[in-house]
Amino acid sequence: MTAPIDFYFDFSSPYGYIAAHQIDAIAERHGRTVTWHPYLLGVVFKKTGGTPLHGIPMKGDYVRVDLARAARRQGVPIGLPKPFPFTSVAAARAFYWLCDRDEAAAKTLAIALLSASFAGGRDISGTKAVAAIAEGLGHDRAEVLAALGNTAVKQRLRKEVDAAMARGVFGSPYMIVDGEPFWGIDHLDLLDQWLDTGGW
Amino acid sequence: MTAPIDFYFDFSSPYGYIAAHQIDAIAERHGRTVTWHPYLLGVVFKKTGGTPLHGIPMKGDYVRVDLARAARRQGVPIGLPKPFPFTSVAAARAFYWLCDRDEAAAKTLAIALLSASFAGGRDISGTKAVAAIAEGLGHDRAEVLAALGNTAVKQRLRKEVDAAMARGVFGSPYMIVDGEPFWGIDHLDLLDQWLDTGGW
Repeated sequence: MTAPIDFYFDFSSPYGYIAAHQIDAIAERHGRTVTWHPYLLGVVFKKTGGTPLHGIPMKGDYVRVDLARAARRQGVPIGLPKPFPFTSVAAARAFYWLCDRDEAAAKTLAIALLSASFAGGRDISGTKAVAAIAEGLGHDRAEVLAALGNTAVKQRLRKEVDAAMARGVFGSPYMIVDGEPFWGIDHLDLLDQWLDTGGW
Repeated sequence: MTAPIDFYFDFSSPYGYIAAHQIDAIAERHGRTVTWHPYLLGVVFKKTGGTPLHGIPMKGDYVRVDLARAARRQGVPIGLPKPFPFTSVAAARAFYWLCDRDEAAAKTLAIALLSASFAGGRDISGTKAVAAIAEGLGHDRAEVLAALGNTAVKQRLRKEVDAAMARGVFGSPYMIVDGEPFWGIDHLDLLDQWLDTGGW
């Protein structure tokens, strides 16, 4: 019995959006499952001094090219919503609320939220937008809205952010396989090779 | 006739050291040559706000794991010299001085300098260390020392740094293929695929 792959991402990360389309398929090829951990990069950035890539001189221009190229390679549409970056607290809370009842449904909701944002250009920062997207998947809108304000759900996310930081997670996407950390969309290929060969 | 691949790196970059062992072989598989451009990341960092990875909280710990893994994958030894990071001005000047006479010899010197630093743990920041390593390859020690203080050689490096920045280069390794930029050691695989498929 092999341990699940831990997949960390922020709902406001376009690279996380692309990785979310790949990670379960990669894991499946190696008989693995994936535990998804949306978290809040902004909290980590306070510790690492990180800033959203798109705003950095020179690096921002590169990221625009690299992101479009990574999306074409995976065959997923990509665009940045406005505003960008945006707060992803509501999306992450919705994920955990649902995940505790139905993990597969939570992943489906996550893909829907990420796609609404990075393929549809939609602002998913607000609770109403998140609830509307969940409703589109058959969830009860009022129930979702209530969950987003629920103290236990808020604490669930806070605990996940703390746990991610305690494990040294600082980027999106960020994967941990049997204790081995892999950061960045390009490390998905490396992770694939790692699982294939048993590491090196 | 295809254009050469432009390969940018800093002599104080351990990822640049690993990439220097791979880039010409990758290019050769696709009938390409490589023009090497050592430059000074410190100058770029002033513009991008970048800092050496190893000193960043959380990211630094990750980089230690990732770097060792990347080195094992390529079968090259790796360690960090003391001090680290270090100034790579002398090494870069030596490269350009030699490159203008003999490009292949300059690449051999570059590999020797990088290996002395990242495999041998040697401090290559000073002109004497650089001249000694060049002497080990059959170059005249006094001639190298004179070149390192030569105004034309100094200006040659300055121009290269300016040109790199003007092209948007901000990392090490950083490759440009037919106008397409690739940043980071893991992008070498992607660059390889890009050349293989003609891009996507």
